[in-house]
Amino acid sequence: MTAMAKELHHPERDEIELSAVLEALSEPTRREIVLRLLEEGEAPCQAFDATAPKSNLSYHYARLREAGVTRTRPNGPYRMISVRVDDLAARFPGLLDAIVAASRVKASAE
Amino acid sequence: MTAMAKELHHPERDEIELSAVLEALSEPTRREIVLRLLEEGEAPCQAFDATAPKSNLSYHYARLREAGVTRTRPNGPYRMISVRVDDLAARFPGLLDAIVAASRVKASAE
Repeated sequence: MTAMAKELHHPERDEIELSAVLEALSEPTRREIVLRLLEEGEAPCQAFDATAPKSNLSYHYARLREAGVTRTRPNGPYRMISVRVDDLAARFPGLLDAIVAASRVKASAE
Repeated sequence: MTAMAKELHHPERDEIELSAVLEALSEPTRREIVLRLLEEGEAPCQAFDATAPKSNLSYHYARLREAGVTRTRPNGPYRMISVRVDDLAARFPGLLDAIVAASRVKASAE
């Protein structure tokens, strides 16, 4: 395991806090990242380079990871990101589904 | 209608934004207020005086109201607050229920 890998903190499933999840998903760019990851599965960070400036993206990835919404997995020179679907469904049943559904309502209405 | 009543802005149902709702409900004191209002129905602001310092409460009430989560109704010298259950259910089906359920998971686990 590399030093970088060791440094990436992920809360355990039962440490995931509702306040942190809601705060992480209250930001539109972060919701967009999560929606795309749910559609595409695990993706390299670079997949979202068009979404926001790179420094902002690093911040958003960290917020999502620290909230327990996503998992970041170093893979050689890349970092792969995925949504912690099973952990979120176990910890807060129905929450992610409701937020995803609400995200689509909003997009279609605006 | 009094001047105070005119000044209290509430977004229309279709103006309620997901980011604002999630942000409003990401804060534990605001979630506590919403949970109690859901149990007790409409309540005067004073009902929550033990929850947080009064200046903080005013801020929380405004955040909830401006996000479209609650409705504040002047009633003589009082302000009555209620959760906009129907508006939220129509705008984002299942979202409030999922957040309420998740709030209870969290409380029981800590």
